[in-house]
Amino acid sequence: MLLKSLREEVLEANLELVRRGLVLYTFGNASGIARQQGLVAIKPSGVPYDELTPEQIVVTDLEGRVVEGRLRPSSDLPTHLELYRHFPALGGIAHTHSEFATAWAQARRAIPCLGTTHADYFPGPVPVTEPLTAEEIAGDYEQNTGRAICRVPSLDAAATPAVLVSGHGPFCWGPTATAAAHNAVVLEALARMAFYTVSLAADAQPIARELHEKHFLRKHGSGAYYGQVAGK
Amino acid sequence: MLLKSLREEVLEANLELVRRGLVLYTFGNASGIARQQGLVAIKPSGVPYDELTPEQIVVTDLEGRVVEGRLRPSSDLPTHLELYRHFPALGGIAHTHSEFATAWAQARRAIPCLGTTHADYFPGPVPVTEPLTAEEIAGDYEQNTGRAICRVPSLDAAATPAVLVSGHGPFCWGPTATAAAHNAVVLEALARMAFYTVSLAADAQPIARELHEKHFLRKHGSGAYYGQVAGK
Amino acid sequence: MLLKSLREEVLEANLELVRRGLVLYTFGNASGIARQQGLVAIKPSGVPYDELTPEQIVVTDLEGRVVEGRLRPSSDLPTHLELYRHFPALGGIAHTHSEFATAWAQARRAIPCLGTTHADYFPGPVPVTEPLTAEEIAGDYEQNTGRAICRVPSLDAAATPAVLVSGHGPFCWGPTATAAAHNAVVLEALARMAFYTVSLAADAQPIARELHEKHFLRKHGSGAYYGQVAGK
Amino acid sequence: MLLKSLREEVLEANLELVRRGLVLYTFGNASGIARQQGLVAIKPSGVPYDELTPEQIVVTDLEGRVVEGRLRPSSDLPTHLELYRHFPALGGIAHTHSEFATAWAQARRAIPCLGTTHADYFPGPVPVTEPLTAEEIAGDYEQNTGRAICRVPSLDAAATPAVLVSGHGPFCWGPTATAAAHNAVVLEALARMAFYTVSLAADAQPIARELHEKHFLRKHGSGAYYGQVAGK
Repeated sequence: MLLKSLREEVLEANLELVRRGLVLYTFGNASGIARQQGLVAIKPSGVPYDELTPEQIVVTDLEGRVVEGRLRPSSDLPTHLELYRHFPALGGIAHTHSEFATAWAQARRAIPCLGTTHADYFPGPVPVTEPLTAEEIAGDYEQNTGRAICRVPSLDAAATPAVLVSGHGPFCWGPTATAAAHNAVVLEALARMAFYTVSLAADAQPIARELHEKHFLRKHGSGAYYGQVAGK
Repeated sequence: MLLKSLREEVLEANLELVRRGLVLYTFGNASGIARQQGLVAIKPSGVPYDELTPEQIVVTDLEGRVVEGRLRPSSDLPTHLELYRHFPALGGIAHTHSEFATAWAQARRAIPCLGTTHADYFPGPVPVTEPLTAEEIAGDYEQNTGRAICRVPSLDAAATPAVLVSGHGPFCWGPTATAAAHNAVVLEALARMAFYTVSLAADAQPIARELHEKHFLRKHGSGAYYGQVAGK
Repeated sequence: MLLKSLREEVLEANLELVRRGLVLYTFGNASGIARQQGLVAIKPSGVPYDELTPEQIVVTDLEGRVVEGRLRPSSDLPTHLELYRHFPALGGIAHTHSEFATAWAQARRAIPCLGTTHADYFPGPVPVTEPLTAEEIAGDYEQNTGRAICRVPSLDAAATPAVLVSGHGPFCWGPTATAAAHNAVVLEALARMAFYTVSLAADAQPIARELHEKHFLRKHGSGAYYGQVAGK
Repeated sequence: MLLKSLREEVLEANLELVRRGLVLYTFGNASGIARQQGLVAIKPSGVPYDELTPEQIVVTDLEGRVVEGRLRPSSDLPTHLELYRHFPALGGIAHTHSEFATAWAQARRAIPCLGTTHADYFPGPVPVTEPLTAEEIAGDYEQNTGRAICRVPSLDAAATPAVLVSGHGPFCWGPTATAAAHNAVVLEALARMAFYTVSLAADAQPIARELHEKHFLRKHGSGAYYGQVAGK
């Protein structure tokens, strides 16, 4: 079996989405990429999570051709592939319809950074894509969904771990499938707290730029000092 | 015992409503129909779910006469029967007072299609019935509730798997009792996300017709390509 | 040990409040009354629920004198006693700070009947008391809380199983302690659904009187036909 | 091992935050102080809760020097220390990003006392700090966060067990680490109920001063009569 440990990690990332209440039934999917081999491991389409095994994780190349696996890959595979091709920093992707992140996506509102929890994970607002055109929907829809994410103005995907797809839901990522699932879980918490905040204060203002950078850099980059950082 | 496997499926559909947090105490009921025999299997009235056995599922004919079973059927049986008689596509029905779907019903607002999760399951908004007249309430109330659903303008029950009964709650259905319960669970998630969305953006617009159809047809009809579709 | 089965029922009613998520830590209390003996069994004050035993349930007379029990009764005992003395129909009382019912109480709004779930349990809105005066607070506060409930205009406590105490939370009751806890759980669900409904439609209207009575009388009185009614 | 029982209590306080749903992943931290020795025991930074052992709890002095422990202390340690130095009454501190308390902090609104649940725990509103200046953020950020709490006008930390840090989240405390965690849990419930209340009534008024004091003094001070109070 190809990519045994990647399959296991992808399976575990999918299960983390379930454990954290981010997916209902078979909604959602997580994948991981082996950059050296140019191979992607992704959840099969429509298979119940509690039956998933590493063997059922589908392995494809970056053009979406199934290299190993008896099941059909997630129908969102072309979106994942577009993101992997466009952003070399991505090692894993998680897509959910988690309820509060999806509500912001449905409201077509970027999530403003209203507090330090958000600043710990995102260097700015969580962006929302422009809606697809009728032509993009009629064409290669899933790939065009990926393109809409890639088109987000000045998106640095290595720093910003999620984008909301307008009228759809969040795509999240990270250096590994594990990190992608983690970021999907955190995004949902941020989306929930931002929802409550704007309900309490419709004109709530983003935190100061200095505070935002302070928190983001506590956890990211060479000056990070959160956690048990190796070599520090 | 008549219809053993249908009873078991109906019992399981009722339990799925409990597992997913859609019913409180004895609220809610699911049924299934054996079209060839013209027999309906439905939850008994007011019996705690954790005591339900397949033997307690009540079997009636399409006029509501008990054919087998020692308990009284759900008091909503005449609503189920009206729907089964009117819509030949229905194989199962689930009625709940799930909280967000009920809130939309109580607000007498149809749930607009604000995102692709909704579009995956419904070809348009989730409709809400007109209120019953005083005469309909005083008359055969439960049957008239079914009639109010059947009267929803241009309702294609084979495609639209739920209607909100004004001031009451959702009735959901599908080709089987299992599908009806599944649709009830999904409806509640859609209702919740739509609630959050209109809270974030009171004037939130439905997604574009092209996007709606794209998603609905990914999962329904001859061009569907979601899941491990047989023969595809 | 006096009133063994009543103590066990009261203990179980208290635990039901915990199981249903209505109480945090030691908040909340349920009691039951043995009308013939004129004795009340109530939760002790401030004891963790997971340590409660039937022996710890405190038995008092209707004036609040401890008849059996080594622990102090709930500090809300005088409220319970006032209700038992005033309303002969009451067999059990449950007081919680369940979050949505408490929010309506804090907003000093009666909960309007916006749907049939509410109508199944209450013949009208869930009333809210007038605030206590400074004198009533300085005086016998807990008993005066009971008096404020008893003063609710045209309250028929045999039909209406709960009142919201302004700025405080709900007191619920029924013919038994079990029924009181059940009604507390249902009230919280109604309060939640009404909250969502008025969020969706600030001017949501109560359901028609005919529909309200139809549902209330489906479950109450001589014409009831919900559940496995004895002798019907 | 120094301070074995304090470490165990601090570990347990951290776990209580998890059990009550107040923390996600490694967010949040609780500490306790041994006043005689001038030593503080605190959660290590970024270690998953389900792996925490008493040995991993880090012991520092009041200047933040690690006295025992192989791991780095929580990055919020300087905030805890500032509070311990400033408020002699504090025996334990719990910091979370619990969602509703954080939403009030993000909205930069103090939580008004809208009901008796709040009055049972706080003698007034839950205060919110002023935002830090750019200089304070660029300087000793975590310590300055503590200073912003200490600067809250007329804060009596022995009576008021929590403050919301503007744009960040709550810091809670009490005479012990156990009490600090308990107060963090209660604060989240109060924040949730206050959120629902102002959603129902944007102009909801605080309860009367007499009612507030009555409830606060039922549980605090020499006249308290809630619970199984020793010596009463």
